[in-house]
Amino acid sequence: MIFNYPNGKAYTNNSSLAKQPASNHRYSNRGMSLEEDINLTNQYYLQENIAVIHKKPTPVQIVDVHYPQRSRAVIKEAYFKQASTTDYNGVYKGKYIDFEAKETKNKTSFPLQNIHQHQINHMESVVNHNGIAFMIIQFTSLEEVYFLPAIEIFPFWERKLSGGRKSITIDEIRINATKIELGYHPRIDYIKVIKNMY
Amino acid sequence: MIFNYPNGKAYTNNSSLAKQPASNHRYSNRGMSLEEDINLTNQYYLQENIAVIHKKPTPVQIVDVHYPQRSRAVIKEAYFKQASTTDYNGVYKGKYIDFEAKETKNKTSFPLQNIHQHQINHMESVVNHNGIAFMIIQFTSLEEVYFLPAIEIFPFWERKLSGGRKSITIDEIRINATKIELGYHPRIDYIKVIKNMY
Repeated sequence: MIFNYPNGKAYTNNSSLAKQPASNHRYSNRGMSLEEDINLTNQYYLQENIAVIHKKPTPVQIVDVHYPQRSRAVIKEAYFKQASTTDYNGVYKGKYIDFEAKETKNKTSFPLQNIHQHQINHMESVVNHNGIAFMIIQFTSLEEVYFLPAIEIFPFWERKLSGGRKSITIDEIRINATKIELGYHPRIDYIKVIKNMY
Repeated sequence: MIFNYPNGKAYTNNSSLAKQPASNHRYSNRGMSLEEDINLTNQYYLQENIAVIHKKPTPVQIVDVHYPQRSRAVIKEAYFKQASTTDYNGVYKGKYIDFEAKETKNKTSFPLQNIHQHQINHMESVVNHNGIAFMIIQFTSLEEVYFLPAIEIFPFWERKLSGGRKSITIDEIRINATKIELGYHPRIDYIKVIKNMY
């Protein structure tokens, strides 16, 4: 299966990515995206029977579809819709897992403009229903990845809404989040954090 | 928010649907689809703080995107992809909920061609990880809706694979599934079944 990202960049499926040599790995700065790393991590979790986590499809508003004879339907006009929830969810030991993954080139803080109010609302609902909600934040320039529980995000969101700073400083992240050690199999072992936390 | 289904049918959002008079309700056979009923049910669960369940976006393979100046990106060529998981998932009391909803006009059996192998595989994974996996099957002509736990589906799937009948008879459904009483708020109270079952 091959599909393209909204940015038009072609993306071959996880299994083929998994076969590529370690030299292509992000640490050599040859452009594995956070999403690709998390997809590979989720594929590893599935294969190793650790958890079942999937990325949700990109929400698209379909306006015009053609049905040519003897071939499959073609979407001729569609638009990207803002997601009403987070990007990833699934199950680990019966528990509901729900998270959003964001990367920033910023070295000193994580800009909250990367998050939308409805995603905050969704994470609040998940927390209220005893699901495990969090964000995976990657500072690409620092090559640091953090596991930030949703309940730690809310105060910073409130601060922004009440006119405070519109980002979470790297120091605040380091205090409130758990650093995820990067590996190869799996690349971003966020379940390990959950295991120790819940 | 307004979007269109793959069939091109326009669909106004749940809240506006919720406002329509009861006379428009499916029982008067004026075409509420199972998906619409389940979306309204999920909206009710969210509003009443009972559960957080969402339908996943339709998976689309995006091939060509245009970025016109001063207006949003337009997807000019895309194709419907087969879903690799089920359509609905979310959290109820911390537990992972995962299901597929199917309707059939058939009065005597549910054709298994409505299900794909990878959806069966996914439901098996969810069950193995102690998630709650099931199907909601609606017999539109009979106006009957059933809650069929995933573990009850697998044997019928095996029967099909081993050359047996390619459907589940209505009697087999009635024996192995729980009938969901239809209402208005919520329309299809599947959480009630989970409450009594788990």
